[in-house]
Amino acid sequence: MTQTRRIVVLTEGQTDPENAKTASCMIRYRPDEIVAVLDGTQRGKTSQDLLGVGGKLPVVGSLAEAPSANTLLLGTAPAGGKIPAPWRAIILDAISRGMNIWSGLHEFLSNDAEFVAAASKHGIQLIDVRKNSERDVGSRKGLRGDCLRIHTVGHDCSVGKMVASVELTNGLKQRGHDAKFIATGQTGIMVEGDGCPIDCVVADFVAGAVEKMMLKNQHHEILVVEGQGSLVHPSYSGVTLSLLHGCAPHALILVYEVGRNVVTDVEHVPIPPLAEIRRIYEVMANVNVEYDCRVIGIAMNSRRLSAADAEIERERVRAEFGLPVCDVIRHGPGELVEAILKFKASGDWQRP
Amino acid sequence: MTQTRRIVVLTEGQTDPENAKTASCMIRYRPDEIVAVLDGTQRGKTSQDLLGVGGKLPVVGSLAEAPSANTLLLGTAPAGGKIPAPWRAIILDAISRGMNIWSGLHEFLSNDAEFVAAASKHGIQLIDVRKNSERDVGSRKGLRGDCLRIHTVGHDCSVGKMVASVELTNGLKQRGHDAKFIATGQTGIMVEGDGCPIDCVVADFVAGAVEKMMLKNQHHEILVVEGQGSLVHPSYSGVTLSLLHGCAPHALILVYEVGRNVVTDVEHVPIPPLAEIRRIYEVMANVNVEYDCRVIGIAMNSRRLSAADAEIERERVRAEFGLPVCDVIRHGPGELVEAILKFKASGDWQRP
Repeated sequence: MTQTRRIVVLTEGQTDPENAKTASCMIRYRPDEIVAVLDGTQRGKTSQDLLGVGGKLPVVGSLAEAPSANTLLLGTAPAGGKIPAPWRAIILDAISRGMNIWSGLHEFLSNDAEFVAAASKHGIQLIDVRKNSERDVGSRKGLRGDCLRIHTVGHDCSVGKMVASVELTNGLKQRGHDAKFIATGQTGIMVEGDGCPIDCVVADFVAGAVEKMMLKNQHHEILVVEGQGSLVHPSYSGVTLSLLHGCAPHALILVYEVGRNVVTDVEHVPIPPLAEIRRIYEVMANVNVEYDCRVIGIAMNSRRLSAADAEIERERVRAEFGLPVCDVIRHGPGELVEAILKFKASGDWQRP
Repeated sequence: MTQTRRIVVLTEGQTDPENAKTASCMIRYRPDEIVAVLDGTQRGKTSQDLLGVGGKLPVVGSLAEAPSANTLLLGTAPAGGKIPAPWRAIILDAISRGMNIWSGLHEFLSNDAEFVAAASKHGIQLIDVRKNSERDVGSRKGLRGDCLRIHTVGHDCSVGKMVASVELTNGLKQRGHDAKFIATGQTGIMVEGDGCPIDCVVADFVAGAVEKMMLKNQHHEILVVEGQGSLVHPSYSGVTLSLLHGCAPHALILVYEVGRNVVTDVEHVPIPPLAEIRRIYEVMANVNVEYDCRVIGIAMNSRRLSAADAEIERERVRAEFGLPVCDVIRHGPGELVEAILKFKASGDWQRP
């Protein structure tokens, strides 16, 4: 990933923080590369107003207002992954200004004849982060016993698994450990600079693609593998299970958002209670592994709560599960970092 | 699917019944369309000798020995789905003879420049059964309460889920019921003439593709949905779960092969005991459904046993699980057909 990107993040008309998670994570974790947010419906606000992150980073109404930018990054990943119709003109405008385009959508820019022709004419790159040609079948072979694999899993989509993974990795690094964030989704890949967009891999090869990332990175001391979807999401549960079995984690961090009671985009389906979620993950994580894989900590996403209510919830969940609990943004990841290091030191994960 | 196919089934050098399941199922369920089996290493034998099915259907050593044929069907689907190298010359020979080619491999004939050029020159069709452009996300909406959904699930790959599904469907039809086999793999699709090759769908859209088949076919009284892989297969478990959650079955038929103790192609990983397999499927099938989804019968694949040993195993499993058990080939599917009809009549599946 080049370090000379000067990025305008496009969120045009899609300012719901759940939709704009690519935008907000890039602004949070790659602040030096971001020049502006582009949303003609929100012009004049700051990124902080719009997305709750980014301070005074400006929201502009057109590309003309960010002349230094050399990259347009599509800042949302809607269900189904299609390019929102109103975005076509903006993307074509950016191409004509000589900007590279980064996209995490399922619908590839590089498969679109109009975009491809324009890109060729203006000599710019179309970067489809989700595009892949993974064709490896998982084998469960070659995984090292001295590299600790931690996996963040969630009760739903878009609850903060990526943020928790990045924060835990950074927290472990700050404690002097050689940790690596394993990105498995388009936003994580844009942030980390490598990874695999597993939801866009052909189904038979998802576990193999994940396993390949484990093998490639197990010279690190600790891998923190970003979760995707949820085992209880009827649309995406298979992606979640391929990832779980592909990375064969030694321990899980359970991520949930307080107040999230129904499944994203399938709102007539309730999310089971957190204790049931934990049970389901532990049943599936322990299929065909030689150790006992358990949830060792809980990352709560308390963004909709006041500070006082967040403390009440934290204590309630601590009492219910007897596990460390924190909101990695509100409290910092320290309590969960401590839990991971304690688990690592216990050696339980290396005993059959 | 045209009814005028005169098929040579190619198994060249791949006569293990597990590898050649596409061949043996086509011979079993589409006998009127099959002219010969092609395997130069086994020339002069009968299909029955080679695959245990097909009676006196000849095994020929070259296409010249089957001049009436107009179709070459690739009769295996190896892990990874690549075209075996020695097959290229045979496929090109078939094309030059004006034969259409049917393939269920992951590696598409229609993406291969040499095959495409030859097909164009000779005016024949390359039919890649696994090729698809599924892009629908599952929604869990619109499923009718009056169409019974039965799903065959297995303890491993290639244990007989497709055969059990076809036999159960045929058995239900013979009892006067409007049953439909829902094919989810390349062989089932070749046999049934429709279906979706779910293992070759982009991961995010597998459950949606399955759900679409449910919605399209629920004017039938009973759907028998072919299972894929296994929830305990580390390479493919996600495909299995997407299918399970996409078809949202009311009841399960558990399929296993007697003596299969390690996971196919991952032989260092043991298959858990059948009771544990049942528990795992029932946990995952009951996520977010309004009824109680249970295993209501067991299809044993006893092909490696003598008749006497098969009876001992059948009684043992009946006693352990208290469920109907039969080998749908050896015993016929009657006992499981009866179990499905009894379950249907109970109305349990329509009560929350």
